[in-house]
Amino acid sequence: MNDINCGVIGAGRIGQLHASLLQNRVDGIRVKTVGDVVEKAAKECAGKIGCEKWTGNIQEVFSDPDIDVVIICSSTDTHADIIQLAAASGKDAFCEKPIAFEVDKILETLEKVEKSGIKLQIGFNRRFDPNFSRVRELVALNEVGNVHMIKITSRDPGPPPVEYIKRSGGLFMDMTIHDFDMARFLSGSEVSEVYARGAVLVDRKIGEAGDIDSAAISLEFTNSALGFIENSRKAIYGYDQRVEVFGSKGMVNAGNVRTNSVSVSNEKSIAVDLPPFFFIERYTESYIREFEHFVSCMNSDNHPSVSGRDGLEPVYIGMACNVSLKENRPVSLKEVRK
Amino acid sequence: MNDINCGVIGAGRIGQLHASLLQNRVDGIRVKTVGDVVEKAAKECAGKIGCEKWTGNIQEVFSDPDIDVVIICSSTDTHADIIQLAAASGKDAFCEKPIAFEVDKILETLEKVEKSGIKLQIGFNRRFDPNFSRVRELVALNEVGNVHMIKITSRDPGPPPVEYIKRSGGLFMDMTIHDFDMARFLSGSEVSEVYARGAVLVDRKIGEAGDIDSAAISLEFTNSALGFIENSRKAIYGYDQRVEVFGSKGMVNAGNVRTNSVSVSNEKSIAVDLPPFFFIERYTESYIREFEHFVSCMNSDNHPSVSGRDGLEPVYIGMACNVSLKENRPVSLKEVRK
Amino acid sequence: MNDINCGVIGAGRIGQLHASLLQNRVDGIRVKTVGDVVEKAAKECAGKIGCEKWTGNIQEVFSDPDIDVVIICSSTDTHADIIQLAAASGKDAFCEKPIAFEVDKILETLEKVEKSGIKLQIGFNRRFDPNFSRVRELVALNEVGNVHMIKITSRDPGPPPVEYIKRSGGLFMDMTIHDFDMARFLSGSEVSEVYARGAVLVDRKIGEAGDIDSAAISLEFTNSALGFIENSRKAIYGYDQRVEVFGSKGMVNAGNVRTNSVSVSNEKSIAVDLPPFFFIERYTESYIREFEHFVSCMNSDNHPSVSGRDGLEPVYIGMACNVSLKENRPVSLKEVRK
Amino acid sequence: MNDINCGVIGAGRIGQLHASLLQNRVDGIRVKTVGDVVEKAAKECAGKIGCEKWTGNIQEVFSDPDIDVVIICSSTDTHADIIQLAAASGKDAFCEKPIAFEVDKILETLEKVEKSGIKLQIGFNRRFDPNFSRVRELVALNEVGNVHMIKITSRDPGPPPVEYIKRSGGLFMDMTIHDFDMARFLSGSEVSEVYARGAVLVDRKIGEAGDIDSAAISLEFTNSALGFIENSRKAIYGYDQRVEVFGSKGMVNAGNVRTNSVSVSNEKSIAVDLPPFFFIERYTESYIREFEHFVSCMNSDNHPSVSGRDGLEPVYIGMACNVSLKENRPVSLKEVRK
Repeated sequence: MNDINCGVIGAGRIGQLHASLLQNRVDGIRVKTVGDVVEKAAKECAGKIGCEKWTGNIQEVFSDPDIDVVIICSSTDTHADIIQLAAASGKDAFCEKPIAFEVDKILETLEKVEKSGIKLQIGFNRRFDPNFSRVRELVALNEVGNVHMIKITSRDPGPPPVEYIKRSGGLFMDMTIHDFDMARFLSGSEVSEVYARGAVLVDRKIGEAGDIDSAAISLEFTNSALGFIENSRKAIYGYDQRVEVFGSKGMVNAGNVRTNSVSVSNEKSIAVDLPPFFFIERYTESYIREFEHFVSCMNSDNHPSVSGRDGLEPVYIGMACNVSLKENRPVSLKEVRK
Repeated sequence: MNDINCGVIGAGRIGQLHASLLQNRVDGIRVKTVGDVVEKAAKECAGKIGCEKWTGNIQEVFSDPDIDVVIICSSTDTHADIIQLAAASGKDAFCEKPIAFEVDKILETLEKVEKSGIKLQIGFNRRFDPNFSRVRELVALNEVGNVHMIKITSRDPGPPPVEYIKRSGGLFMDMTIHDFDMARFLSGSEVSEVYARGAVLVDRKIGEAGDIDSAAISLEFTNSALGFIENSRKAIYGYDQRVEVFGSKGMVNAGNVRTNSVSVSNEKSIAVDLPPFFFIERYTESYIREFEHFVSCMNSDNHPSVSGRDGLEPVYIGMACNVSLKENRPVSLKEVRK
Repeated sequence: MNDINCGVIGAGRIGQLHASLLQNRVDGIRVKTVGDVVEKAAKECAGKIGCEKWTGNIQEVFSDPDIDVVIICSSTDTHADIIQLAAASGKDAFCEKPIAFEVDKILETLEKVEKSGIKLQIGFNRRFDPNFSRVRELVALNEVGNVHMIKITSRDPGPPPVEYIKRSGGLFMDMTIHDFDMARFLSGSEVSEVYARGAVLVDRKIGEAGDIDSAAISLEFTNSALGFIENSRKAIYGYDQRVEVFGSKGMVNAGNVRTNSVSVSNEKSIAVDLPPFFFIERYTESYIREFEHFVSCMNSDNHPSVSGRDGLEPVYIGMACNVSLKENRPVSLKEVRK
Repeated sequence: MNDINCGVIGAGRIGQLHASLLQNRVDGIRVKTVGDVVEKAAKECAGKIGCEKWTGNIQEVFSDPDIDVVIICSSTDTHADIIQLAAASGKDAFCEKPIAFEVDKILETLEKVEKSGIKLQIGFNRRFDPNFSRVRELVALNEVGNVHMIKITSRDPGPPPVEYIKRSGGLFMDMTIHDFDMARFLSGSEVSEVYARGAVLVDRKIGEAGDIDSAAISLEFTNSALGFIENSRKAIYGYDQRVEVFGSKGMVNAGNVRTNSVSVSNEKSIAVDLPPFFFIERYTESYIREFEHFVSCMNSDNHPSVSGRDGLEPVYIGMACNVSLKENRPVSLKEVRK
């Protein structure tokens, strides 16, 4: 089977990472072109991965008949339009989350995707993390029985610049969105209601920018399970990513990953090193595995397991959380779904 | 220093345990009399611990000038009246939680305690658990910095009989009350608002009896920290008692205690044994330590660190949770405090 | 069933501990008399545990018809003679390890025990440690299959005074003797050959006193398993007591016990507290359980599972190690057994 | 800086792995030619990694002026001659361990390497394992103080075919050789004496082939530390690779790596998944890191930290172990060193 040719659109941090992984770590696919509106960025990224073609005009990617699929890593506000370009040109697409901040835009995009028949995978990479995918596998194997409670801890090692936060869509859309997806993924169920508390505990400037930096969200699922998501923009000990699923037959949890298996015993304590620094270190394997899934779908009749609708639902949950936080009341997903 | 003479009132399960611990495991105190309205129970309990005196008339305990203090282990509905007897007779008292289910009764009792000048310790034993007391110590030492988040997991190995549940005051008053105390203890702050979700996921009969068996409670503290308490009446793998305190300078958590340090590696997995079965096995050490604290207060001018007010506040929190659950809305503690 | 009356002989550190445990923590037995050649020590010990009788003449213990059994906690050089007194007076005995340093003395003593028909339990308490007894249980249940390798790590938190070391019989007889017993206990087999390396790495004065402070011992068992014991007089992080049994069907190991289940995560590391300080803290439970076993044997036809021969074999192994260390060669147990 | 061109010699299992890692995972180097006496193997390997050149005549690799360095992955009996070819052609070389089974051959080879001035790195990849390199780093940082004891556990998930074993040089040369290197690496010292016990406990056929499948080796180091290496050809729970370094200031140990951070609690136990299957899964990262070290040495004046002499010493230790096993006595390294 020949390698799939892909065009990578967006040569920022995540685009560079993805281009490199696709070129060097994922079998069955190769990067034919790197496109970025900043041509220099496209050129540099292409150079680093030994890809001969780059462009500052992403339309070229879609008009190249040798390119089978596009990998969309551009800024969030361009995702929906570029997916629509992919649909129009009949090219399957992988797109980083979220599809868009506005539900109408997402709905319009998904409609066009559906009509076009292209395959679309949304980049909720954590589903492919070896730890969380093992948790899901065990839940699906009924090791937990009926799910009663899902708990997700998600703390970053440090906040992004305030400038970033201002354009981020807010904590729920920028950070918790991964946890909303994880809640749906692990439970195999939909969130029916949320109650969100938020606070500015890490950095006053985040509050001044209109956002929160700490959050505690109660969830209720359609299958009657309860849930809890907790976020902080700053855990001094590093990136804290844990999940726990509890049910009638047992509990499955995934603790933090370790950077090594070493422990040091001295007169003060028995200590181990901190977890991997941040998402790139922690989730590299998950990126590779999500692309492997994408490639396997391209080479078969299967649609990716992380669908366009999987890109939509977390946005609804985030919207409900925003309402809940503002009005300090539980909010049913029915209020926000269209 | 001579041993303190105590009278144990109530010779049921917890009374027997306490009488035995006081007699055999706690230095500086001895059981002079066991009193229970069921004289036979008092006699049996006294016999088991080698105590020569028992009575079916608990008034005798209070009229005995040789008895310095009383240990109140009778049924919850009698706690307040017996504390008032202690206050009237000038005997210091240790009383199992809760003081009463009705706030008015508690307030009346605490008023009498205060006027009498007796010392009163409430039996929130988990504060003396070596694990949770170490967490509190580290929080107090500022190892966590400003507290941002407190999470408490509290799951029983199995539900009590439905008959018990009917008279229990409900999950929040019967089971979560310990966690409410733990939240206050660990945070060193007061709960200002709650939002409680509950469900009947373990046993339909519990629902038919008007109670829930699973709960998820969001907390907000006066010091701005957020919190989360989670309960289940049944964890198939056993008694699950964990806490986590996260803040600006780090995280401290206490996992489950192990029954042994053994692990077994075979072709299927690497496995360890389940945690101690239930509260008696898990918390024996904490009972001993709470009595040691009580004895040390009796032998000094100090009042016990777990005060009458510590017996009152968790009841307020439980009341707020009951309102929250019923009306599906966040409830400020101001609504229920008197 | 009436409580057994015991006489505790020897009111030093271990005698005081045992007297207290027997009086307060072990059901079915009570201390009738404390005997010590230093009458003041006997009196103090008796006073602490609320025992009304003490004596400076241990013969009185044996002539008291109300005393059913004796608990021998005196200095090692008196063990054999006191066991023989017990045999002569027909009283069952529990004796701290070792029976004696000289094999002839042990053999003579065991012969008298056998002729007298008394029951004798040797104080290899670690067999009753909840961790190691669980390992043995799993080995006996064939969870490990055929045993291939046994590893024992045994490190003290700090060396005893050099004066003690001079009279200790040497590291192998004083410290490793417990590990020799553990090797036999865990394997269910006999040691057939040893090769011992020793070194003075902790404190030069120990070397000047003619002893070693660090040891590494290779073992071969009659069932073909191999083994390794390792000792140090000083582990700066505390008492280190671990075992591992590996075989055809798996591995069972017991790590160090924790003082609490707390971990602290900060910007430097994730750390837990050190293990229990030394043998009294670590092995209290094992002392209680060995006495419970003793009591249950007294109340039945069973002889204690830790027999006189179990007191002899580790001495043989220690002798073989001493030869091996001196001559730097493997030594068969046949060379030293009589 | 331009990429280094390398020739990979030997296209068997390890050659294919290395060629792929060099091509895809290691920056600064690319595979120019794959050489194998079996041309078809060379061609297939080259094809898989997108390398355009292959040859059945490895001399071609050495005569190609564009090839800067050679990566020697051929069968052990050819290592020494190929290193000598590299020396003769002035090409730096990376060579899989061991250099040869015969000391004379190694000495002759190292002499030629030295005269030629080429750089030579021996493939003791475990030194670059993130876990063991962290242990070494901590030892070098004096976190352990003076080293007193080094323990190495090394068990394979299953034995190789008996045919392989017959040509393997025996357990000590084939399997323990990595542990001998680890002992030297971790201690920063030389082994001065060994005492080796071996047994056939896994498979009688291994014994019939003249080898052992289980081993227990006592070590003494020139810095007075003691050590212990333990091997089994079959651990049913998988590849078991642990080290422990104990000294005057503390202990550092590296436990097994986990395949995920998930644990499952049910009514029977709390269980985690088995470790990575075997050396390829466990040590991939170490292979990449050893090549990164090699590349960095090629781009500087540094010689690789794993030198020719590091290839020689473990062979001496293995020889001493063979003598020890045969004659059942401790053997000084002086007996076997030339």
